[in-house]
Amino acid sequence: MAKVKVAVVGYGVIGQRLADGVEKQEDMKLLGIVDVAPTLSIRALYDSDSPYDVYVVNDSMRGAFEAEGIPIKGNLNDILSEADIVLDATPAGVGAKNKELYLKAKKKAIFQGGEKDEVADVFFHGYANYEKGIGADYLKLTSCNTTGFIRAVDCIDKEVGVERVVVTIIRRSADPGDIHRGVVDLALVEKVPNHQAVDLMKIMPHIDATGALVHVPTTHGHIITLLVTPKKKISVDDALKLFEAHPRIKVVEIEKGFNSNAALFRYARDRGSKRADMYEIALFKETLVLSGNNLFFTISVPQEAVVTPETIDGIRASLKLQTNWKEAVSLTNKYLKME
Amino acid sequence: MAKVKVAVVGYGVIGQRLADGVEKQEDMKLLGIVDVAPTLSIRALYDSDSPYDVYVVNDSMRGAFEAEGIPIKGNLNDILSEADIVLDATPAGVGAKNKELYLKAKKKAIFQGGEKDEVADVFFHGYANYEKGIGADYLKLTSCNTTGFIRAVDCIDKEVGVERVVVTIIRRSADPGDIHRGVVDLALVEKVPNHQAVDLMKIMPHIDATGALVHVPTTHGHIITLLVTPKKKISVDDALKLFEAHPRIKVVEIEKGFNSNAALFRYARDRGSKRADMYEIALFKETLVLSGNNLFFTISVPQEAVVTPETIDGIRASLKLQTNWKEAVSLTNKYLKME
Amino acid sequence: MAKVKVAVVGYGVIGQRLADGVEKQEDMKLLGIVDVAPTLSIRALYDSDSPYDVYVVNDSMRGAFEAEGIPIKGNLNDILSEADIVLDATPAGVGAKNKELYLKAKKKAIFQGGEKDEVADVFFHGYANYEKGIGADYLKLTSCNTTGFIRAVDCIDKEVGVERVVVTIIRRSADPGDIHRGVVDLALVEKVPNHQAVDLMKIMPHIDATGALVHVPTTHGHIITLLVTPKKKISVDDALKLFEAHPRIKVVEIEKGFNSNAALFRYARDRGSKRADMYEIALFKETLVLSGNNLFFTISVPQEAVVTPETIDGIRASLKLQTNWKEAVSLTNKYLKME
Amino acid sequence: MAKVKVAVVGYGVIGQRLADGVEKQEDMKLLGIVDVAPTLSIRALYDSDSPYDVYVVNDSMRGAFEAEGIPIKGNLNDILSEADIVLDATPAGVGAKNKELYLKAKKKAIFQGGEKDEVADVFFHGYANYEKGIGADYLKLTSCNTTGFIRAVDCIDKEVGVERVVVTIIRRSADPGDIHRGVVDLALVEKVPNHQAVDLMKIMPHIDATGALVHVPTTHGHIITLLVTPKKKISVDDALKLFEAHPRIKVVEIEKGFNSNAALFRYARDRGSKRADMYEIALFKETLVLSGNNLFFTISVPQEAVVTPETIDGIRASLKLQTNWKEAVSLTNKYLKME
Repeated sequence: MAKVKVAVVGYGVIGQRLADGVEKQEDMKLLGIVDVAPTLSIRALYDSDSPYDVYVVNDSMRGAFEAEGIPIKGNLNDILSEADIVLDATPAGVGAKNKELYLKAKKKAIFQGGEKDEVADVFFHGYANYEKGIGADYLKLTSCNTTGFIRAVDCIDKEVGVERVVVTIIRRSADPGDIHRGVVDLALVEKVPNHQAVDLMKIMPHIDATGALVHVPTTHGHIITLLVTPKKKISVDDALKLFEAHPRIKVVEIEKGFNSNAALFRYARDRGSKRADMYEIALFKETLVLSGNNLFFTISVPQEAVVTPETIDGIRASLKLQTNWKEAVSLTNKYLKME
Repeated sequence: MAKVKVAVVGYGVIGQRLADGVEKQEDMKLLGIVDVAPTLSIRALYDSDSPYDVYVVNDSMRGAFEAEGIPIKGNLNDILSEADIVLDATPAGVGAKNKELYLKAKKKAIFQGGEKDEVADVFFHGYANYEKGIGADYLKLTSCNTTGFIRAVDCIDKEVGVERVVVTIIRRSADPGDIHRGVVDLALVEKVPNHQAVDLMKIMPHIDATGALVHVPTTHGHIITLLVTPKKKISVDDALKLFEAHPRIKVVEIEKGFNSNAALFRYARDRGSKRADMYEIALFKETLVLSGNNLFFTISVPQEAVVTPETIDGIRASLKLQTNWKEAVSLTNKYLKME
Repeated sequence: MAKVKVAVVGYGVIGQRLADGVEKQEDMKLLGIVDVAPTLSIRALYDSDSPYDVYVVNDSMRGAFEAEGIPIKGNLNDILSEADIVLDATPAGVGAKNKELYLKAKKKAIFQGGEKDEVADVFFHGYANYEKGIGADYLKLTSCNTTGFIRAVDCIDKEVGVERVVVTIIRRSADPGDIHRGVVDLALVEKVPNHQAVDLMKIMPHIDATGALVHVPTTHGHIITLLVTPKKKISVDDALKLFEAHPRIKVVEIEKGFNSNAALFRYARDRGSKRADMYEIALFKETLVLSGNNLFFTISVPQEAVVTPETIDGIRASLKLQTNWKEAVSLTNKYLKME
Repeated sequence: MAKVKVAVVGYGVIGQRLADGVEKQEDMKLLGIVDVAPTLSIRALYDSDSPYDVYVVNDSMRGAFEAEGIPIKGNLNDILSEADIVLDATPAGVGAKNKELYLKAKKKAIFQGGEKDEVADVFFHGYANYEKGIGADYLKLTSCNTTGFIRAVDCIDKEVGVERVVVTIIRRSADPGDIHRGVVDLALVEKVPNHQAVDLMKIMPHIDATGALVHVPTTHGHIITLLVTPKKKISVDDALKLFEAHPRIKVVEIEKGFNSNAALFRYARDRGSKRADMYEIALFKETLVLSGNNLFFTISVPQEAVVTPETIDGIRASLKLQTNWKEAVSLTNKYLKME
């Protein structure tokens, strides 16, 4: 079977990782990446061992890349004409504009969480509502935190049902290297509910969710506490078994050194993962307890790479590569080595 | 009526504020403060407009102070002989050793949360269990976070009863100026339950509590989300009224700029409060919602000064200045201008 | 002699402190402060023991203040009609617009470092070029870092002459409570020379200066190393004596606990200074050494309050209250208790 | 020619990278690594694609590793008996104790900068004093900052001679993931001169050096400004050419996005470098200026990996693999791809 052809538009924090993720799928072909300027990420790509092909949005941008010695394979129209689907990872709001080009080129596309819901036909999560994405032309992925904690909530929901969720998100206020955002010696409190809890309810409408969001001076992943009210009581041991069996959840132990978002990042670096990335959320084993019948536990969401698997699930759904969600996510997981 | 005479032993972050708090009580007299070395805090005290009398633990320490030009009023025995009660705010573990001296001098004492429970006869909180402290010789105060969130929990508990509490504490990892602790770009996760939830159950044994604790790179106050399950349903409006009426809870609005622990600190500075201190916990109005029947809300606990009121309540209880808790806390509040 | 009447326009980080500083000058009268919205600073002012009169820029803004229960004394025209001089501490760029109003009202004004040089007739520093400001209608103050290190450079320059200066500025990336700026786990490097070195040369044109600027995740003051090449060799001891005799330089010792910007801030809090402010730069004694004939030393600049004294010097110059710089700065220092 | 056999003792931040560096040298064989407990780094090693052999210090430690499923190849004596040389990267002070074992086993060893000078016969830097290390049994490497800035100073020194150096080091206060050190909202000032300037003079005794050291809340690399007084004037352009030609210095441009330590780290991640490591110091092009005849410039020192090349140079010197420094460093550079 021919590989499906994928274009990544926007080569920032998310786009880089989507490209890497697609490259690892044996049934997909990454045509290349599209960007507007020779950023540091493009420079790093070109300096790497096996750079992807680089396209510009329009030909007027070629000069800037060529001045940096970076060869250009073509423009957006060129890559669109070849692609089966586009992964759009441009800054929030740009995707909505780009959609017109995708419509004109009659190409499917998957947008990231920064875009408004209206950009897409379906608001998508690979595990929680795969079937809604099957055959859809335009999908929007849940954002990093929502993607991450839905994995855990869905994992319990599929077994015993979930009635209610309360999350406290302790989020990084900047990405590594980011000079445009960030708080110093400050924990910024947002109004409740946060959009992540609202988004969970859009994806899993049978659940009542709310949540608080606090921005703190960190860059490596979000820490989230979840209180999950199941429909049927479940023991800590049984919940733990479910989490341990989930390919996209890595159960870690504080006493073995996995005691922070930064420890997970260091582990990924030391293990030799490209970009020190992790696709799994981590669930801290010693934080999993019962409060009455409610499960209470803490996870870490690696904001940079966490949406990669579900985005690739989206390709599978949109292009009907698999019509069974289990088969789809299993393939994604296999190629990303998350089994 | 003669003022009761109070000695403060240990003039660090907490001790300084206890001394300030006692000084403001019209029915109490601060005899002075005791420390072991001419620290920066002692230097600042001496350079202030109206320094307290300074005592050393034993006379061998006089030289170090005198070399700095700081006059010494006497030693620990001198101040003990005059005092009715001691507020011990020494580093964790030192209080237990000091207790032998207090026992020998037949003086009552109040210890802070860093000491082990065994140091005291009663584990104390001014609002939640004042009556247990009445006449007791040795009290131990709840630590800063526990002191803070018990205010809010007790406030609901007194009205409709509380069954269950789940807290997520986002704590500062260092005090301002501290060079011995602190995390950088890291959110450190502790095992669940944290000691604060356990401590709440010691003070309020009819409540089932658990909680997560995450250390972050901040210095100004802890941010805590609480999920409180009441025995009888209470509306957001009614809960808000209770909180607004509580003298030790300051309800603030995010949209008016009270959007972080640091904003509260800045407000206290700009208002001209000594040391930029706040005695109240802040409750962020726009975070108060219902999740099912559970109240969910976010508070900020100013770790440096928050235990001052409840410690002064402890003096009132231990010395039987008031045998009715409402009268006791009202006086404390009045003198601290928290009405 | 009648007190000169001063209006402060813009009640942010700097404006608050200018108002406090003027209030302390026995030969000046603070008419009030002007702002556009009931910010947290205005709220804190109103909640303080003795609030200043509040004016709005134009009457259409009264409603917003009154909704917060904050009484309004009048509008900008009202305060201008009474004032002898305006201290403009509005956000960068606004001062230039305001100048038209000051011109129309025929009022003198002093602008802060964020404005462009063109806004003023004289770029001013109380110690280094007081005489240029005498009688001038529009002054612009040097920014916080430049104000601070010029004190130290000028102090040496007045004694033995200075030929060359090289500074490395390690600056706070946000003010306390600021959510709009800040870097996390990052030290941001700017092109050399920084504007502060260039500004020094504008004020002291006989000196050749350059400097590096690095933004770091702190909020309390800037740390600066200076390498100062004197025209005539000066010993460490003699330099130290000069610094110790300077009313606006506080020589501190690392081994006594003054080991950081945050230690200085904590000291100011504990001493009971309003807002925990310091007007002095701190010079760390144990960092003062010779490298060849060059003096090398490290200072801390408290960014929030440091420009207050020199701004008040500016009032004295512009209104010709004193025509001798020594008399002028001595009075400012006396009223600010920096003797 | 047979490969020389190298053992790495201590598999922490530095040890991991020394092992990686040796592994890349075609004329060296990494026998394995030695540690005392199954740390997170060991866990990451074992979970990586091609783990190194793991040895324990003594057999009593096997159990702890085997409980984690990590196979043990042997004990310290086993690996010593095979090794030609040991790279000791144990925590400061442990190396001195280990030396007795190395002496007993008659094995050469190279220690890191945390050990006292007395542990070694020669204090070593591959570029600045290679010849002193030739044939020596025990070398101690300069620490990360000293290693880094000596590269730049030596580069100028070899061309025009250097008379004087003044450095301002803005250092990370913790390593990524470190929970035992770190400062929050604080810049900690140390006494002058710092040990790094003193160490430079030990390696390059003809130079007069001093320097300031400030600890800040970052984890990715140290930022250092250097003022270098050459014996013979050199232009910015000529200096730049020297730096650009140096294999261990990477000249980067702020305006191309290399504007911080974190940008360099991000670049290394995105380029796909293992652990996101860099061996080169970075020199920010737009910071290189003349102040009088002095060169002034800013570098970034990646503290984790920077000592790897010079440590490998040390192997070459100690084992007399090359007796000409240029040949030695060229080989190291070639295998580390720093040409």
